Amino acid sequence: MKNQIAVQDTYPEDFAHCYGCGARHETGHRIKTFGAENETITDYTPASVYTGAGEFAYGGIIASLIDCHSTGSAAILWMKDQHIEIGSEPAARFVTARLEVDFLAPTPLGMWRLVGHAEEIGDRKVIVETDLQVDGITTARGRAVLVRVSVSHEGA
Amino acid sequence: MKNQIAVQDTYPEDFAHCYGCGARHETGHRIKTFGAENETITDYTPASVYTGAGEFAYGGIIASLIDCHSTGSAAILWMKDQHIEIGSEPAARFVTARLEVDFLAPTPLGMWRLVGHAEEIGDRKVIVETDLQVDGITTARGRAVLVRVSVSHEGA
Repeated sequence: MKNQIAVQDTYPEDFAHCYGCGARHETGHRIKTFGAENETITDYTPASVYTGAGEFAYGGIIASLIDCHSTGSAAILWMKDQHIEIGSEPAARFVTARLEVDFLAPTPLGMWRLVGHAEEIGDRKVIVETDLQVDGITTARGRAVLVRVSVSHEGA
Repeated sequence: MKNQIAVQDTYPEDFAHCYGCGARHETGHRIKTFGAENETITDYTPASVYTGAGEFAYGGIIASLIDCHSTGSAAILWMKDQHIEIGSEPAARFVTARLEVDFLAPTPLGMWRLVGHAEEIGDRKVIVETDLQVDGITTARGRAVLVRVSVSHEGA
C-alpha cells in the first residue's frame, strides 16, 4: 500500500525550494515520492524540452530524477526504519554524497516510474538503488549514497 | 592554448537539439566545451532557479553539467588522439554509459568551470574525469564512461 503523503510535502521550509524536489519551487520538477511496502515510487513525466538525441531524453534529466528520487527515498526508508510515520513531523532530510547512474538503454520521453530500494540503512547514511522504468522496462539504474543532515523544524 | 571552436558547434544535426549540449536547443543549457592542452574546459553559469538548499545548487544541475561536459570532452579527447582537428568535419559523438558524481562540498550558484581529463581513450570507449570548480575550488568530481556512436553527417 502506497503512503498517502509524498515525503516532499513534509520537508522543512529550508528544503522546500529545491529545483528538483521543493514543493514550493515555482518552475522546478516538484517530484513526489511515496513509500510503498519495501520500495519507494516517484512517477514523473518529463517535459518535451528535455530531448537528447531524437525522441529520447537527455542524460541530465535522467541523472537529476534519480538523484531527486534518491534523496526522498532515503528519507522515507530511514523514517520507516525508525518507525516514524511520514507526515507525523517534518521529514528527515538527506543530501547526496555520491551518485552513480548506468544508462542501460535510450530512455524515451513519456511516463517514467522510478522505483527505489534500500541497499543499506544506517544511522546517518542510506544507500538507495533506483530503477527508472518506462512501460515496465528499466532503461537506467541508479545507486546513491545519502547522508542525513540536521534540519531546522521552524516554518515546516 | 584553448581551441577556438566549441565541439558542440560542430555536432551533426541529429545531436544539435540536446537539452544539455545542443547548439540549436532554444531553452537548454547550450554548453560550450573547448579543448586546451591535455584538458577540456566548459564555463557555465547556472540560472538562479537551480537552487537546492539555501544559495547552493541542486544536485541535478551538477550531475547534468558533468554529464554534458563529459560527452563533449570525450569527443575532443578522442579526436585529438586520432589527430582530427575540431571543426575539420562533424565531431565524433559520444553517449554516456555510466556517470559517477561525488558531491564533495555544497556548490554555490555562480561561475562554474568544469575541467576534464582523459582516464582512458580507446577506439570506442573514453573515460573522462571532471572537476567542477567554483573560484578555483573543486566542489564536485565526476567520472563518466562514454561510448562512441555512429553519426549521420548529413545536415551537419
